[in-house]
Amino acid sequence: MRYLLTIQYVGTDFAGYQVQPALRTVEGELAASLEKTFGAPCRLVGCSRTDAGVHARQFCLTLDTDGAAIPPCRLPLAAAPFLPPDISVLHAVACAPGFHARYDVVSKEYLYRIRNSTVASPFERHRVWQLRRPIGSDGFDAMCRAAQAFIGYHDFSAFMAQGAQVRDTHRRVDCCRVRRDGLDPDILNITVSANGFLYHMVRIIVGTLVGVAYGKIAAEDIAHILSSGDRTLAGMTAPADGLYLNRVSYTDILV
Amino acid sequence: MRYLLTIQYVGTDFAGYQVQPALRTVEGELAASLEKTFGAPCRLVGCSRTDAGVHARQFCLTLDTDGAAIPPCRLPLAAAPFLPPDISVLHAVACAPGFHARYDVVSKEYLYRIRNSTVASPFERHRVWQLRRPIGSDGFDAMCRAAQAFIGYHDFSAFMAQGAQVRDTHRRVDCCRVRRDGLDPDILNITVSANGFLYHMVRIIVGTLVGVAYGKIAAEDIAHILSSGDRTLAGMTAPADGLYLNRVSYTDILV
Repeated sequence: MRYLLTIQYVGTDFAGYQVQPALRTVEGELAASLEKTFGAPCRLVGCSRTDAGVHARQFCLTLDTDGAAIPPCRLPLAAAPFLPPDISVLHAVACAPGFHARYDVVSKEYLYRIRNSTVASPFERHRVWQLRRPIGSDGFDAMCRAAQAFIGYHDFSAFMAQGAQVRDTHRRVDCCRVRRDGLDPDILNITVSANGFLYHMVRIIVGTLVGVAYGKIAAEDIAHILSSGDRTLAGMTAPADGLYLNRVSYTDILV
Repeated sequence: MRYLLTIQYVGTDFAGYQVQPALRTVEGELAASLEKTFGAPCRLVGCSRTDAGVHARQFCLTLDTDGAAIPPCRLPLAAAPFLPPDISVLHAVACAPGFHARYDVVSKEYLYRIRNSTVASPFERHRVWQLRRPIGSDGFDAMCRAAQAFIGYHDFSAFMAQGAQVRDTHRRVDCCRVRRDGLDPDILNITVSANGFLYHMVRIIVGTLVGVAYGKIAAEDIAHILSSGDRTLAGMTAPADGLYLNRVSYTDILV
């Protein structure tokens, strides 16, 4: 049976999702925990490869194993005792043997959280990008306008970490918006969803939006920066702390 | 000048607020940080003494020092570089020399957070009481009825840790309510405000409400348990992880 798992993790103490020798990774910890759960090795395929420090509120992966036949609905509780405290399996379903956790993704949504206040909240350590300098209502409005310019099918070369190897740098962004958090207006929530992402794409988009908020980049220049393909015209790469993989969508499976 | 400081802290890595030899306490860390900020020793008086693992979203204390004359509005930023990452000074005002951070408290509000779901959220580690067994709508309704019975001026002896020394065990509870969190219905928020609290009072009230939710204690028996003064009739002491000092109110000063 191939399982499709939905998990959450706090990225702070991981060197990213993907397994790496001698480093603590989500995939490595998860494979070890699930091997104990099933009593046999588990082959995992994740929906994405999040970087060191990036969190996931919803991350999907498939699991194949020759181990114990655990009903999918029992898997979250069965795995819980073996998991480290910074990973949870939220739920699991059976999926078709040909289903692929990465290739079958239709869209992914990232959330980026900024706290804009002079003093940091100790409850949000490693979970937001703390920006002390106030973003006024003009800056906020400019960020919202700039965010709209990312929507659509574009070449995102200017918003990709330099040195990344990828054949096609076009992506379709369906949503890019900035909202003040309803409960805490000092928090800005930036949501970006797309059919795929280039390396550091969300973090460079966020860094650019912050450049717009502080008047270093004009909201009206985003279209030009996109068409230039020039990374040096875009803003800084926002830190990993504030970034959350928020939702993964597949064609046929509702996760 | 006597300052009145409002701070936040994540209680997880502290042996409580009050200074204790050889243990990491909020008061101890704060006094050391503020001594560096002012360049002189600081005398601190806190509004309360929270236990090991208990958090504060708003905790107030007074500070007296012969050190540098830092304007109160500058203090949060001036202190920030010296504070550990699990404490923040949110703001500071000047107060009268006779003002007392503990004796002048009019009321305090505690929030207790329960997550009722089979799987824990890694983002809420040490920040909620995880209850896996479902609380149904009958159980929830019973909790709400039971919570109401705590409101008023009562002898709370039955809701005080045994062995605690205190002259008067009467307290006036102004608010005691259970609500499902608006964003996450698996979270129950229990709010208790009173003119003062006995040792472990909120945690025993919460443990009793959970006993009511699971049918071990009848909502209608709360009045009887209160009048009995018998600790053994009340429920268990809820763990520190879910408890937050949420608000401190003074007569004349709005903090």
